[in-house]
Amino acid sequence: MNEQVTTDGRLLRGARARQTIAKHAVDVASTEGLNGLTIGRLAADLGLSKSGVQTLFGTKEQLQLAAVEYAREAFTEAVIRPARTAPHGAARLRVLVEHWIVYAETPLFAGGCFRSANIADFDSRPGPVQNALLQDQRTWRGILARELRHAVDAGEIADLDTDLAAFQIDAVMCAANTAFRLGETEAASNVRRVVEQFLRPPDGDRPQ
Amino acid sequence: MNEQVTTDGRLLRGARARQTIAKHAVDVASTEGLNGLTIGRLAADLGLSKSGVQTLFGTKEQLQLAAVEYAREAFTEAVIRPARTAPHGAARLRVLVEHWIVYAETPLFAGGCFRSANIADFDSRPGPVQNALLQDQRTWRGILARELRHAVDAGEIADLDTDLAAFQIDAVMCAANTAFRLGETEAASNVRRVVEQFLRPPDGDRPQ
Repeated sequence: MNEQVTTDGRLLRGARARQTIAKHAVDVASTEGLNGLTIGRLAADLGLSKSGVQTLFGTKEQLQLAAVEYAREAFTEAVIRPARTAPHGAARLRVLVEHWIVYAETPLFAGGCFRSANIADFDSRPGPVQNALLQDQRTWRGILARELRHAVDAGEIADLDTDLAAFQIDAVMCAANTAFRLGETEAASNVRRVVEQFLRPPDGDRPQ
Repeated sequence: MNEQVTTDGRLLRGARARQTIAKHAVDVASTEGLNGLTIGRLAADLGLSKSGVQTLFGTKEQLQLAAVEYAREAFTEAVIRPARTAPHGAARLRVLVEHWIVYAETPLFAGGCFRSANIADFDSRPGPVQNALLQDQRTWRGILARELRHAVDAGEIADLDTDLAAFQIDAVMCAANTAFRLGETEAASNVRRVVEQFLRPPDGDRPQ
């Protein structure tokens, strides 16, 4: 399983070939949707044989799951990991948001934020791919909610429903991801302003 | 142009046939994306000849535009028109939101809110279909912003950035549309709570 000879004579080294194909799968899925992802399409794009790609991934669904996994790791590297050195609470939330804006504005993938681009597309298609995307969404909202909770507990901000706030911040990020694709660069400041509404000090007045 | 005889011998009366096909096109697009919409697919689904559908719509793009138009009219009927009798400001905004929740929860179309389902899908595809979806989004956000402005002017709520608030409300609705498809019925209360944050009386304190 480590080496695959494709019908066009190329030698694909298993792990590296999988990575190359998964990366391209994410690019295709981020602009055209995960559902547009087929083994034949990827093979044609990359000049590989269909049977070679099939040997590495099996089914279309496994290919889609590999794309979700690749995108998850890239998101973790780009957004979550760099924030780990920031102190919990408002400071870390701001670092997460700034890294997310860079991630979405100058995207790793052609269509920007992979999860945002695909979750609406898969909401009517139950199955392992939908489950994987939902799990990623829950993880991300959980991280946002946890930092808000830290901020409340430390007295940085007034108490609030952290789950509802995380839902709102994530929703605004999804909308901003679409706006970025359309060239609306002011969406970055919209995201910052919405997040700052939640990060007002406890004696602050109503959000603007 | 009023009557089309299809190759399988059916008589399609132009306007009615266009409506039937456009309605099905919206159903398909709301679950599988506008890009999955092809003349061949629709013809097969409806048991019509491909040439018959082609005569009525011309190109795939014209078919997509007809679906956007059909969905826009249905949205106007279901959400915007019923609110026209409510007084401007907070009252009308609440009526719009309640009708939107019904529209999205028990959808006219298989995939729920058509615009929410498709706009992210088309953000990387410039052209007339993207323009039509964006125009609908601008119109909807404009309606939300206008009612917030009425509420501010009437002293019902404190002054706020109505465009930013409309962006937020629309973003939360898009996220709720996805959540409804996934069976998360509590999304309706999330939408209501987010909207009520903006509708607090001027002397209210920060949102919860």
